[in-house]
Amino acid sequence: MSELDRRGFLKMSAIGPMIFSGNNFAKGKSTQEKSQVNFNADGLNLSPQQYTRLLLEIIEKKGIKDDYYSQKGVVAELEEKFALSLGKEAAIFMPTGTLANQIAIRTLCGTKQKALVQLESHIYNDSGDAVQTLSNINLIPLGGTNATFSLKEVQETLERTKSGRVATQIGAISIESPVRRKTGQVFDFSEMKKIAVFAKENNIKTHLDGARIYLASAYSGIGVKEYTSLFDTVYVSLYKYFNAASGAILAGEKSLIEPLFHVRRMFGSGLHQSWPFAAVALHYFDGFEERYAKSVKKSEEFLKKLSENERFKVKRIENGTNISQIEISGTSAEIFAQNLLKKNILLTPRNEKTINLLTNESILNIELDELLESFVKAV
Amino acid sequence: MSELDRRGFLKMSAIGPMIFSGNNFAKGKSTQEKSQVNFNADGLNLSPQQYTRLLLEIIEKKGIKDDYYSQKGVVAELEEKFALSLGKEAAIFMPTGTLANQIAIRTLCGTKQKALVQLESHIYNDSGDAVQTLSNINLIPLGGTNATFSLKEVQETLERTKSGRVATQIGAISIESPVRRKTGQVFDFSEMKKIAVFAKENNIKTHLDGARIYLASAYSGIGVKEYTSLFDTVYVSLYKYFNAASGAILAGEKSLIEPLFHVRRMFGSGLHQSWPFAAVALHYFDGFEERYAKSVKKSEEFLKKLSENERFKVKRIENGTNISQIEISGTSAEIFAQNLLKKNILLTPRNEKTINLLTNESILNIELDELLESFVKAV
Amino acid sequence: MSELDRRGFLKMSAIGPMIFSGNNFAKGKSTQEKSQVNFNADGLNLSPQQYTRLLLEIIEKKGIKDDYYSQKGVVAELEEKFALSLGKEAAIFMPTGTLANQIAIRTLCGTKQKALVQLESHIYNDSGDAVQTLSNINLIPLGGTNATFSLKEVQETLERTKSGRVATQIGAISIESPVRRKTGQVFDFSEMKKIAVFAKENNIKTHLDGARIYLASAYSGIGVKEYTSLFDTVYVSLYKYFNAASGAILAGEKSLIEPLFHVRRMFGSGLHQSWPFAAVALHYFDGFEERYAKSVKKSEEFLKKLSENERFKVKRIENGTNISQIEISGTSAEIFAQNLLKKNILLTPRNEKTINLLTNESILNIELDELLESFVKAV
Amino acid sequence: MSELDRRGFLKMSAIGPMIFSGNNFAKGKSTQEKSQVNFNADGLNLSPQQYTRLLLEIIEKKGIKDDYYSQKGVVAELEEKFALSLGKEAAIFMPTGTLANQIAIRTLCGTKQKALVQLESHIYNDSGDAVQTLSNINLIPLGGTNATFSLKEVQETLERTKSGRVATQIGAISIESPVRRKTGQVFDFSEMKKIAVFAKENNIKTHLDGARIYLASAYSGIGVKEYTSLFDTVYVSLYKYFNAASGAILAGEKSLIEPLFHVRRMFGSGLHQSWPFAAVALHYFDGFEERYAKSVKKSEEFLKKLSENERFKVKRIENGTNISQIEISGTSAEIFAQNLLKKNILLTPRNEKTINLLTNESILNIELDELLESFVKAV
Repeated sequence: MSELDRRGFLKMSAIGPMIFSGNNFAKGKSTQEKSQVNFNADGLNLSPQQYTRLLLEIIEKKGIKDDYYSQKGVVAELEEKFALSLGKEAAIFMPTGTLANQIAIRTLCGTKQKALVQLESHIYNDSGDAVQTLSNINLIPLGGTNATFSLKEVQETLERTKSGRVATQIGAISIESPVRRKTGQVFDFSEMKKIAVFAKENNIKTHLDGARIYLASAYSGIGVKEYTSLFDTVYVSLYKYFNAASGAILAGEKSLIEPLFHVRRMFGSGLHQSWPFAAVALHYFDGFEERYAKSVKKSEEFLKKLSENERFKVKRIENGTNISQIEISGTSAEIFAQNLLKKNILLTPRNEKTINLLTNESILNIELDELLESFVKAV
Repeated sequence: MSELDRRGFLKMSAIGPMIFSGNNFAKGKSTQEKSQVNFNADGLNLSPQQYTRLLLEIIEKKGIKDDYYSQKGVVAELEEKFALSLGKEAAIFMPTGTLANQIAIRTLCGTKQKALVQLESHIYNDSGDAVQTLSNINLIPLGGTNATFSLKEVQETLERTKSGRVATQIGAISIESPVRRKTGQVFDFSEMKKIAVFAKENNIKTHLDGARIYLASAYSGIGVKEYTSLFDTVYVSLYKYFNAASGAILAGEKSLIEPLFHVRRMFGSGLHQSWPFAAVALHYFDGFEERYAKSVKKSEEFLKKLSENERFKVKRIENGTNISQIEISGTSAEIFAQNLLKKNILLTPRNEKTINLLTNESILNIELDELLESFVKAV
Repeated sequence: MSELDRRGFLKMSAIGPMIFSGNNFAKGKSTQEKSQVNFNADGLNLSPQQYTRLLLEIIEKKGIKDDYYSQKGVVAELEEKFALSLGKEAAIFMPTGTLANQIAIRTLCGTKQKALVQLESHIYNDSGDAVQTLSNINLIPLGGTNATFSLKEVQETLERTKSGRVATQIGAISIESPVRRKTGQVFDFSEMKKIAVFAKENNIKTHLDGARIYLASAYSGIGVKEYTSLFDTVYVSLYKYFNAASGAILAGEKSLIEPLFHVRRMFGSGLHQSWPFAAVALHYFDGFEERYAKSVKKSEEFLKKLSENERFKVKRIENGTNISQIEISGTSAEIFAQNLLKKNILLTPRNEKTINLLTNESILNIELDELLESFVKAV
Repeated sequence: MSELDRRGFLKMSAIGPMIFSGNNFAKGKSTQEKSQVNFNADGLNLSPQQYTRLLLEIIEKKGIKDDYYSQKGVVAELEEKFALSLGKEAAIFMPTGTLANQIAIRTLCGTKQKALVQLESHIYNDSGDAVQTLSNINLIPLGGTNATFSLKEVQETLERTKSGRVATQIGAISIESPVRRKTGQVFDFSEMKKIAVFAKENNIKTHLDGARIYLASAYSGIGVKEYTSLFDTVYVSLYKYFNAASGAILAGEKSLIEPLFHVRRMFGSGLHQSWPFAAVALHYFDGFEERYAKSVKKSEEFLKKLSENERFKVKRIENGTNISQIEISGTSAEIFAQNLLKKNILLTPRNEKTINLLTNESILNIELDELLESFVKAV
């Protein structure tokens, strides 16, 4: 083992997994150095080396039970913890959110043919018409270009459906919140609750595309279970801020989740082994809510202080979550980013003047003063 | 790091990845020790610890480029090597063989509605009617309980199809070889060639479920490309004997394979990152054919010598590949297996007297004489 | 009105609808004369002129209420009569048997993916993979080339299904009897009963493709309701022996049949008006069982007497129904048929020596002696 | 035959089929008298008796060749005439427009997954999600609540589709004109032409739901072929103003239409015989354009004169076709309608004051002055 390797490894061992997020490990020839603080993503963007070292440490410190076709072992452990945290009876690992959403809507619809979604949702725009093509369900897009659709729209669609010459039934309503295509805006909670009540009354099932629901909760102050209790099923991403290389969780009632092992396999996603994903997700899931609450607090302080400096104009997204925008004056965003890179602070210009800042737990790797100073000096 | 760990690690570093297959690494608390020689599987059955250590070694020795949604990086490298080895223009990573088979048949059929498969094939029995349910293709099962179906059956089915009151077209013929449900029996090669010619003449596309085609090739002496040149598409498993935690390869013409990135994603299998699978598969793929040829030679010698001992009755599968059966006398299979376990030789009784022996490259980890002696002493 | 027309019309009016089957009406330029006795079909093969005159007579004598998108009016009247006769709560008109079978299997399966059918069934061979393509249901063909499959085959298929790596469920068993492709052979009744019991015990729904079940009943002596009581749904053809230009009936429980109005329409079969079919089917349905019992009796006597003549060799189909075969000696089948045509007796040679005779109610249009004499003289 | 019957019948024979539309035939007990002039429908609303008498007259005067499973005979004759009139190589009979639209979109899309339609179209609202459920095609609704959508919307949708993470392709654009749900408004012709050009450039196929395209043509002055030449396929209804009991025509290139015999059958719409529909549609198709041009002219004169009377306020639909609205003063719409019924003029109040008037060829059955006088007296 080279000195560099050993150093990195020991350091990691010494101060625990969180350290990973900001450490400057040497990596394989072909991967680039990760920076200490990363404003580019919802999560830590671990390099293969960081990822594998962490995985080895987990295995050697705690041991993990491997899974058999994504059942049992560390996968089951992950599923149980998520079920508990989401307030659902059961949860199942899925390799992607695209699949989790499809299988949720498909299962909730049963033999009904229609589901309501946001026009701006991931499932409607970014899954290649998966639900329509493979599950033969007509997704009705609502809400126009907004993050939220209204109960009124739901009711009107139900009416329109009934007025058709052939009766079809709405089997499910799927709500994504926060909405990726709307820079992390959340679905209006009051409307969400009304829709959930209406759905129950009308025997329509509900699904939450809560890929980033733990992020939303930290910003809205609404508990994760407050959200999920409104829905029959909920999907949470494992790769975005729980830092698995891939993966997702789908949770709901036991009677609904248990048969999904077979459905998952039919869709070609019964991975022979998923422990390389599950073990890392489980690692970051433990204590995440607490760490992320701290991260948000620190980030808010940071943005507040930044906005007091005339060189920085901070723009917040209305009903937004962990994505903010800064506009800088005095230098180009490009040069600004290059300057910060030298301090291992990673961010990416959107154009000549503006930069999106995403809050994740890497902000805990730096002192607030140091971060501020770095920003001020870099401009 | 414990002494044991270090010892295992250093040894691995010293003599290269192959050593992994047989070494006696300490593992995480919850995983069990792997044996030196493993007769239980097509591949090495790496424990999470072995797997992760190997992965780390690969990363630190060679470096790997990570992938972006299963594109580029080490995934692309793996795809290119497989395409070359299989004699096809292009290849694409799939997380499972179930998906690889489905997408192949779906793509080859286009708007045609029928495909021919073996009654005993994996796609017909073990994928939950995936192709029928998600791609709306009628799979016609041929061959009865045999590994092979005949050209005559294909012709008769074509006739029957034409005689129906509504014309439907056969879009694809899928052949699995070797056949898992037939203890590794191969599809008759002469019949395979005739069917391939007939299919081309009748504008029917062909798919090879060649999950274990590299194993078959070593036994039949027919080159992998000799097989694959008969087919439009071919699937190879990555987890069985290339030892990835999960994964598969689907290869064919570039014009056919390239759009499958989108289809893969639609099916919910656009994993955010697949490098933890691809890097290990790539590692074992390099030099596999040579190593496995040696393994088969050694295994054949071993079985021959074993059969000369009256305590062992060796049964070969007709047209079989890497699965043999031994019947022992003098002791129970159970006790026999326990005795060998002490020597780190792993096998599993099927019943009181018989045991299936699967040949994989772990046989290279022991001297022939030592292996024989262990068997004889254990009985 | 021309004399010819008037004569035909009056005659028809005078002796009632049955007369139609054998009368020699003048027809439109482009249609050919129908013969008095027709051995070619299950029914009467009415010409457009015969059909339309009958329809007009029905309308003017009895009056009919027209339907609105195949609901209400004479269509509802027909549905009610069939429901009663079949011992089911409700029945719905379908334009074809292909659709009736598809919708039955689709509905019975719900979200289950498999249905069992005969290899030799119409639904498996002659509907263009309709159920597989449009309802995504995997039809498992049983029984080989026989009319009957066994309970044992059903049980084995259930076992095989369970042993697959992905569980799928058998939603329905469909049985066709008599089997068109097997020259009208019936499904073994004792096996049918066993399968029905087994299906109920295993929560598998059952469908009878009873296109010709009224014919079967007359031959087997088993009441129509004895058959249909074994099944959840039953389809009966309207165009074969009830002489509608097109149409079918699907019967079952009310809760199951009522929503099918919408499914029928979704499939594009919500005909704006179906009374031209329903009125004729209803006309022939009234009293059919009695008339057909007489026809069978007469036909049996006829075949018996014919077989006593050395020029005729009568072959009965084992477990057959209304299709028999005669082999003639002394002249060619061709000339024999031409001779009988002059007597308005219609039949079609299969080859040089043999002719299929189908029994329908047109045999009531001739005296037995006259029929025999015509056959004997024609040979 | 009663005197009334005979009179009606003779009259019909004497002056040809057109007379049917306005004559006051006695009908079967259960059907109600039809009025001489009918403002309630696009067509003549023939009673079963009128229908059957006409059919018989057609058969006896001209003769018809019956069809075999909706092929050959009078069905083929109808298909050929429509193909010619629509400027397409081939046409096929379909029992309903719902099916014609589904099969067109399904066929045009091939393996592509998306089609664009109007939000207010029949296919989107009134077919029970048929295309989505049975052909797995995602219908994207455009145009909001308008009859027309714009090229810009098409382009934006194409862009949005491309920006999704998974590429999907738009296979077809379907345009309904006139739009039933928009009181017969037509799709803007200039926009239609631009969209057609854009579609061709982008390899997107186009379908015209031209159920009432012959009506539209009479109002717009744009020839039927001018419309249809913009589209790959076109559907025309047979039951609305060609007065068949049911039926539709789908026309397009021969290579596209010919295989649809099988698709039609797979959908369960291979009716055993369709001549009772085809013969009547063919009858009214001959000379329709000329007769309807006269009807429109007369109707326009009538509405103009009516609007000069202060008791009547005539409202025309913007970009409308054969549907107009009148508001009456002086009496209730109910009493007004009852008064006209005595004159065998049929119309139905929408509410207390307003009535929709639909123009069909029954207006030719009355003198303009008589019609006007009846209206004025009835108010």
